[in-house]
Amino acid sequence: MKEYTPEYLEHIRQIIAERNEEAARTELADLHPADIAELYQQLDLEEEEFLYKLLDDEIAADVLMELDEDDRRKLLKEMPAEEIARQFIENLDTDDAVDIIQELDEEDRDKILSHIDDVEQAGDIIDLLKYDEDTAGGLMGTEMIVVNENWSMPECIKQMRMQAEDMDAIYNVYVVDNDYRLRGILPLKTLITHPSVSKIRHVMEENPASVKTDTPIDDVAIDFEKYDLVAMPVVDSIGRLVGRITVDDVMDQVRESTERDYQLASGLSSDVETSDTIFTQTKARLPWLLIGMLGGIGNSLILGNFEEGLSVDPTLALFIPLIGGTGGNVGTQSSAIVVQGLANGSLDLRRSGRQLLKELGVGLINGLIISLLVLTYNVMKLGPGHYSTTMAVSLSLMSVVIFASVFGTFVPLTLEKFKIDPALATGPFISITNDIIGMLIYMVISSALIIHFAG
Amino acid sequence: MKEYTPEYLEHIRQIIAERNEEAARTELADLHPADIAELYQQLDLEEEEFLYKLLDDEIAADVLMELDEDDRRKLLKEMPAEEIARQFIENLDTDDAVDIIQELDEEDRDKILSHIDDVEQAGDIIDLLKYDEDTAGGLMGTEMIVVNENWSMPECIKQMRMQAEDMDAIYNVYVVDNDYRLRGILPLKTLITHPSVSKIRHVMEENPASVKTDTPIDDVAIDFEKYDLVAMPVVDSIGRLVGRITVDDVMDQVRESTERDYQLASGLSSDVETSDTIFTQTKARLPWLLIGMLGGIGNSLILGNFEEGLSVDPTLALFIPLIGGTGGNVGTQSSAIVVQGLANGSLDLRRSGRQLLKELGVGLINGLIISLLVLTYNVMKLGPGHYSTTMAVSLSLMSVVIFASVFGTFVPLTLEKFKIDPALATGPFISITNDIIGMLIYMVISSALIIHFAG
Repeated sequence: MKEYTPEYLEHIRQIIAERNEEAARTELADLHPADIAELYQQLDLEEEEFLYKLLDDEIAADVLMELDEDDRRKLLKEMPAEEIARQFIENLDTDDAVDIIQELDEEDRDKILSHIDDVEQAGDIIDLLKYDEDTAGGLMGTEMIVVNENWSMPECIKQMRMQAEDMDAIYNVYVVDNDYRLRGILPLKTLITHPSVSKIRHVMEENPASVKTDTPIDDVAIDFEKYDLVAMPVVDSIGRLVGRITVDDVMDQVRESTERDYQLASGLSSDVETSDTIFTQTKARLPWLLIGMLGGIGNSLILGNFEEGLSVDPTLALFIPLIGGTGGNVGTQSSAIVVQGLANGSLDLRRSGRQLLKELGVGLINGLIISLLVLTYNVMKLGPGHYSTTMAVSLSLMSVVIFASVFGTFVPLTLEKFKIDPALATGPFISITNDIIGMLIYMVISSALIIHFAG
Repeated sequence: MKEYTPEYLEHIRQIIAERNEEAARTELADLHPADIAELYQQLDLEEEEFLYKLLDDEIAADVLMELDEDDRRKLLKEMPAEEIARQFIENLDTDDAVDIIQELDEEDRDKILSHIDDVEQAGDIIDLLKYDEDTAGGLMGTEMIVVNENWSMPECIKQMRMQAEDMDAIYNVYVVDNDYRLRGILPLKTLITHPSVSKIRHVMEENPASVKTDTPIDDVAIDFEKYDLVAMPVVDSIGRLVGRITVDDVMDQVRESTERDYQLASGLSSDVETSDTIFTQTKARLPWLLIGMLGGIGNSLILGNFEEGLSVDPTLALFIPLIGGTGGNVGTQSSAIVVQGLANGSLDLRRSGRQLLKELGVGLINGLIISLLVLTYNVMKLGPGHYSTTMAVSLSLMSVVIFASVFGTFVPLTLEKFKIDPALATGPFISITNDIIGMLIYMVISSALIIHFAG
């Protein structure tokens, strides 16, 4: 990882201030586009522009891809459509070009598309824009080396050299039949280590792992991880090769989607980073806090209905945080296990029943241990005068733990069944619901006991 | 993703029951090792063993790598050391072999190492076992193609063919000088598309991204993502090439570490899956629940000290869940943002001060909005009779939100500074502490107000 020291940044700023193009070019020549993008984020807009103009178009396009979405949007807003098309889009792989275009307004999109000189690329981009962003079609690019199964190996290598001219990285060659249906792959390694004159179909690996254009991205990621792939072909509904997905895009996807689950579980309603402004952060955080606030007010209403019981033994109030907190903790655990299992493919919806039964078991054990410990503590601490409170607290804890275990499992499973993202159920929603139900259980049980023992 | 229908499983079971080796071999021939491993998990041990014996050694070793750690351990426990060495270790890449050996007892390790016939492989494994699991050295393997910068290209290709004989996948060729120091890489693409007779050093890409053996794995993953790599060379402290890391291992790592952060935030003290037994799950979940229980009891003690205040106005008790819950929610959000920023490299410790100030700002805004909303609600709902309670609730909410924002930011930053995993601070710990501090704040403020207005 590149670390920019304050001294280095000072040095760069000095060069820019002096408008010393030669020195700046020398500095930039040693840097990877991703590093240049990082450098930019520490400079102001005017300094950025000076450096940007010194880059050749291909590097400039790569740097653009590596910028934060916000920074990129700011930069593109200032540029005419024609320049965006010529300088960036034509120098990007189709999948990256589509990502950029998708970030723009409808109107700007058409303008840019009409300015792309390479008609084939423009056509590919228009095709790719049709796919849902969350499917293999939305993630794939069309840059790949494709050969016919009936060609000979020398013919294949000749073709490869032509096709590969302006491609960044190639790991596999895709083999198709006369109808462009995917038949196999040829790892580059085979081409080098086993040169031969036979036809490709005798040398290729048959039945390669592939996905359809409408395969959800999460399933694509699971396949990459399972089969240890670096690239995977994408086919249409009748098996024709239409694109390829590369591992770098999949890895970004895995990080994003696991980070997203974690953020939702932590009550963040949209992707926030430490670098976002106070306003952006507040916007992402306030919604859940307000829902939590409503939950808390709901709780005060429930408790208000039982104020009589609370005044018979005010000691009851002391255990409100214990019961609410325990329900929240248990529910958070249960739902996290289910959400993660569904995300990484280890939990199958068909086993929902078994999972619920298992949670019931875990809940019983945890509930028994916790309520017995608290019972012992309360018997010793409160003494015989608070017998009904002691009983009410432990019985409530037991019920709350079991309820929260089952509820925290049931909700994400049900959402998944109805094709709603189960991660939405975790975190604040589960813990607030458990908190409220916990209070209800506690109040009902303690009222019943107090009436019972008072009677 | 392979889905095994009940019919298919029935079909396989039938074949196994009939001991029909030929039919079984035909079924297995079409399956990827990862799919065979998945199939095994649905069969019982005896059925597994029947299929296992039909696999050739190399496939069997790959299947072993794909099994769950528990299943693998069960299988290895039954086998003599010599067989493990011959059948598995010798057919695995060194990095996978090291992973397997690390799962065994000290005693078994030495036995297995002594049974490896390939002395070079055994030596490599012994070297690799020395590295910390969480560093590049612990993740790398030694299988790679290495050429000397002074060789000519045809010489290089000849060498490659020899070295590549039994390697699975190759993406780059590493170029070293006479002292085995890394000088560059040669993408396979270059070999195919730009055949030439020049010396390698004129064709190679210089200054390739590389890491040192002691680079933490998290930093390795950030580099892979930043530079879109599929493989990266690892060098020792004086720049000599010692191994390579492949993207599939890095991707597993990214998923594991983000899942781990999420699990810790959800109060799971070790990696649990839905498939784990009730006992394993309870063991992973009970510790945090008990800490939560202690927190709840702590809260009851705090509230007990203010019972007098609670009896002056029992309405105070109704807002206990609101104040505790809000503190917990805010703290969870703040700490999640910091933990994630530190994990994906977007937050730098040197900016701790700025981050704390920003959180103070976010806390002020959120606190102001929430406490004003609750104030309005309480003024309308409770009326003038509960003026001090209304004030106490809103003032406490304001203080709790600000405290929780700053505390939730401060704790993970401090842990990171002392090189303790900041993910440990998220979830239950932060929310329990905020809950307790929240109660203290609430009780102190309301007592003060009640005394003030009573006086």
